[in-house]
Amino acid sequence: MQIGKVIGTLVATQKSRKFDGAKLLLVQPLNADETPRGTALLAVDSVGAGVHDRVLVVLEGRSAGEALGKKWAPVDAAIVGIIDRIDFE
Amino acid sequence: MQIGKVIGTLVATQKSRKFDGAKLLLVQPLNADETPRGTALLAVDSVGAGVHDRVLVVLEGRSAGEALGKKWAPVDAAIVGIIDRIDFE
Amino acid sequence: MQIGKVIGTLVATQKSRKFDGAKLLLVQPLNADETPRGTALLAVDSVGAGVHDRVLVVLEGRSAGEALGKKWAPVDAAIVGIIDRIDFE
Amino acid sequence: MQIGKVIGTLVATQKSRKFDGAKLLLVQPLNADETPRGTALLAVDSVGAGVHDRVLVVLEGRSAGEALGKKWAPVDAAIVGIIDRIDFE
Amino acid sequence: MQIGKVIGTLVATQKSRKFDGAKLLLVQPLNADETPRGTALLAVDSVGAGVHDRVLVVLEGRSAGEALGKKWAPVDAAIVGIIDRIDFE
Repeated sequence: MQIGKVIGTLVATQKSRKFDGAKLLLVQPLNADETPRGTALLAVDSVGAGVHDRVLVVLEGRSAGEALGKKWAPVDAAIVGIIDRIDFE
Repeated sequence: MQIGKVIGTLVATQKSRKFDGAKLLLVQPLNADETPRGTALLAVDSVGAGVHDRVLVVLEGRSAGEALGKKWAPVDAAIVGIIDRIDFE
Repeated sequence: MQIGKVIGTLVATQKSRKFDGAKLLLVQPLNADETPRGTALLAVDSVGAGVHDRVLVVLEGRSAGEALGKKWAPVDAAIVGIIDRIDFE
Repeated sequence: MQIGKVIGTLVATQKSRKFDGAKLLLVQPLNADETPRGTALLAVDSVGAGVHDRVLVVLEGRSAGEALGKKWAPVDAAIVGIIDRIDFE
Repeated sequence: MQIGKVIGTLVATQKSRKFDGAKLLLVQPLNADETPRGTALLAVDSVGAGVHDRVLVVLEGRSAGEALGKKWAPVDAAIVGIIDRIDFE
């Protein structure tokens, strides 16, 4: 899983029906010290995250679909937690 | 999921039968600010996208196959939405 | 999916039984303008491709196995089409 | 699989229910000679690993879920072993 | 699939039970001309490979698990062949 920060939202009217009702968030991956890392990606939210939240992201289809239930299957990234604290050396 | 722009098409007469009828589009991945990022990839269309559209792409086999129904299984990338608007900080 | 060019073959006498009869080809990934990109990879052929062909490659286990039928399962890349033409801007 | 070193922990109160009871560890990937490589990632522990342990990490959803049992499905990385010794040339 | 060379072994006493009896090998990925490429990875052996062998490696969970039988599921890389010869241009 990766650490990220929600930085935006995306609107797509014409989309796979399986996305109806799903919230698509733009997430900036972060390093452990919370500096940005690489390019932003899109993830489906499963925990009620919003812009500015630091989140836990799974980056793989099976696990992302699992996070959302079978009906949201055509996804490859999902937000599965809101991070309270990271402790590291 | 990734943001991309459809920039072309591909013709392959001799191909896996499971692709019959599928539309293969060349997609340039984009950053959130819509500047190009990395190399173009090929994705199967599931939403009626065309050249110049900004699209939402899933990059993984299970989710790409899911977007298209089981009969299109041997794919690892699919267009699952046409993007209207991206809002980010 | 990726664009590639078949550049060689590989012989492995001692291999997983599930590969018996499969043709392993060395594929050089290409950019849309057909310049080489990154390092060559090995893919199982499912469409009768040969050296010099420009091919369509899936890079993921489920989709590669799907291209070849279940009996070829331990694969992560397969050639699923021979490219006639790429049109792009 | 990858070699890594556990360097921290993560607390996420609001998370997918399927993570209840799972221990999320921050892992620094290592080269074979145990120098750091790339950015830290988050993995679910399945073997009782702790900070400072050198660990064996699987980086893929199906295998990570398998390591933890089906109920921990929405994961893409898991610690599956604690490394005693690496011998290499 | 990737080309690699077995360069070492790994010992992990405390590990997922599903690894009991599995041989974990350290593999250096190679380019087609057999120069080293990137960092070494760990793969489970399914063909009796040993140090110095040039091997064919699958890098993905479903295919790696398939190479080893279901009981070895929590793996993301497996050695599926020993390479005799690579012919390329």
